[in-house]
Amino acid sequence: MPNTEAAMHDYRVELGDRSYNIHIEPGCLENIGTAMRALFPDIHRCFIVSNDVVAPLYLKQVTGSLEDSGWQVETCVLPDGEQNKTIQSLSTILDGLMASRLSRNEPVIALGGGVVGDMTGFAASCYRRGIPYVQVPTTLLAQVDSSVGGKTAINHPHGKNMIGAFYQPKLVWIDPEVLATLPSRELNAGIAELIKYGLIRDADFFAYLESNMDALQTLSPEVVSHVILTSCRHKAEVVTADETEQGMRALLNLGHTFGHAIESMTAYTEFLHGEAVALGTLMAARLSERLGCASAGTEEKVCALYKAVGLPVKIPDFTADDWLDAMGHDKKNVGSRIRYILLRAIGDAFIAEDVTDEDIRGLISSYQ
Amino acid sequence: MPNTEAAMHDYRVELGDRSYNIHIEPGCLENIGTAMRALFPDIHRCFIVSNDVVAPLYLKQVTGSLEDSGWQVETCVLPDGEQNKTIQSLSTILDGLMASRLSRNEPVIALGGGVVGDMTGFAASCYRRGIPYVQVPTTLLAQVDSSVGGKTAINHPHGKNMIGAFYQPKLVWIDPEVLATLPSRELNAGIAELIKYGLIRDADFFAYLESNMDALQTLSPEVVSHVILTSCRHKAEVVTADETEQGMRALLNLGHTFGHAIESMTAYTEFLHGEAVALGTLMAARLSERLGCASAGTEEKVCALYKAVGLPVKIPDFTADDWLDAMGHDKKNVGSRIRYILLRAIGDAFIAEDVTDEDIRGLISSYQ
Repeated sequence: MPNTEAAMHDYRVELGDRSYNIHIEPGCLENIGTAMRALFPDIHRCFIVSNDVVAPLYLKQVTGSLEDSGWQVETCVLPDGEQNKTIQSLSTILDGLMASRLSRNEPVIALGGGVVGDMTGFAASCYRRGIPYVQVPTTLLAQVDSSVGGKTAINHPHGKNMIGAFYQPKLVWIDPEVLATLPSRELNAGIAELIKYGLIRDADFFAYLESNMDALQTLSPEVVSHVILTSCRHKAEVVTADETEQGMRALLNLGHTFGHAIESMTAYTEFLHGEAVALGTLMAARLSERLGCASAGTEEKVCALYKAVGLPVKIPDFTADDWLDAMGHDKKNVGSRIRYILLRAIGDAFIAEDVTDEDIRGLISSYQ
Repeated sequence: MPNTEAAMHDYRVELGDRSYNIHIEPGCLENIGTAMRALFPDIHRCFIVSNDVVAPLYLKQVTGSLEDSGWQVETCVLPDGEQNKTIQSLSTILDGLMASRLSRNEPVIALGGGVVGDMTGFAASCYRRGIPYVQVPTTLLAQVDSSVGGKTAINHPHGKNMIGAFYQPKLVWIDPEVLATLPSRELNAGIAELIKYGLIRDADFFAYLESNMDALQTLSPEVVSHVILTSCRHKAEVVTADETEQGMRALLNLGHTFGHAIESMTAYTEFLHGEAVALGTLMAARLSERLGCASAGTEEKVCALYKAVGLPVKIPDFTADDWLDAMGHDKKNVGSRIRYILLRAIGDAFIAEDVTDEDIRGLISSYQ
């Protein structure tokens, strides 16, 4: 395979005794058994959680690789989709772990997108008060965001990701080739997350994405591996500095306060998470300009790149009361204040504690 | 009140940035508001979880004390009993936290026995990925065991405490006077836990309990506070050395492998947890003698003290297959081996990795 070496990367997330490797390599799915054998030399049983979209595509390959390395494999396949990221699905995973009598040192593998990864990580954190788990993310969004950093969760009917744990994986194993089977809409939602890292802390990366969008969308191995590595590095740097989101990690929530509100108001059915966050980021950019934090044209520059990707850019129409109510349940609140992540410029985000409800009402009315 | 000072103790559990105080003082329930104010100077809202036996006795007093110190209090009252330590009850607590829109820095108080404490601690660990919680244990068992050490959990239909987290409280607030309303059977089950600490690591404490059992059962303030302090100190020393039970903490499970099996085989209806553990400890003592680890008479000495307390001492009648099957689900397994905690002598427990199924069959048949 051409260019594989240029597209292979290892990155170590340094978190003391919770440190772990991120491995990025086209085609590496077929080597997961060897990697697991090296990581858990004395263990012979593991448990894979996947979903009914990913399992038909990759479960057999992963199971085969594991069995070739002497693993006995148990599996649990959940229905796909954010609407299944519930306490009921968590219960299904836990029932499976109980039925298999998995012991405290036998690992769980999350094979799927962010929903599978978040739920599996949370199940691993609380089954027997914590067993090892490994992320094998199969969407771009999961590869560059949710699989790194140890935030695990399920949704509550009244709020997204409200129930969960900070619990780090033992390994993140990323095969960019699996993106070939990812629907383009989901690929684009993942690209929105890449753009987010550029916006928060890396103007050069934003420019790289502007210049290499075609190569990225046609899955050039070097470009894809490079953007995954860059994003994982950014995420890991932030997580290492602030594992449990006391401060700086909150920057990663750029677009999320508005984005979660959009997902909640549209009942998680209209937009993918990455699309909702992209829309939320546009709102954060406009709010930054309106409050005099960012210079005029910032929103437009972000919007232009989103359009080039093919992401939605039209803010959905709800009343200001609907917006404020939906954001009142956002878990990043401190006391009664809502914290917003705003931009000083592309590549420079900050936490704003002093945004008022009136600022938000003004922003909302600017779309009407 | 006489002798209050002699009966007041503070003990610091040293766990780095997860350190916390245990405060033991007769009558201190009425000062919980002041204590919470000192611990959370800038917070004004908290959430109490209790059960329908404890709430009618003490919830009003606790709420009043908190309100007098400027706290706004939300409450959630669950049905009492181990059979309610389920994912459904956890869900009820989480629904209450969501409905109250509790933020990440507003604390939860567990007012009740071990079931309330374990479930509340677990809910606090996963609501918004972790909010502060405070233990106000109202049973002797909870005061000397479950409220200290940060093991939180719910039961799974196929195993006790299988779903949970290691999550430390911010404060343990122990009022021994509440034991006056505790049914004597539950008091005795707590005394079994005191005896366990003596058996594991403190022969002098075992002797103290032999000598002071009457004063303890009539709730002499000095004796009660002393035994609570001694037990909390033992528990804290073990937890500090081994927070996540990689080794030494397993000693605290003396009697638990057999005890959990007894609870499971009797569907959690026949014995209180402390009673089941007492029976399990008798079995561990006999096994220790049979394997030549402990000298003859060890079991008899333990049994005599249990009888003096009024604890059950008759091992329930099940087949060896039933026992082994019930113990196969015990969460302290490493791989396929079952680890037993055995005694070398009173005051000297150890982890035995090499007990065989045949040893267990022999033990079981000794009761038949």
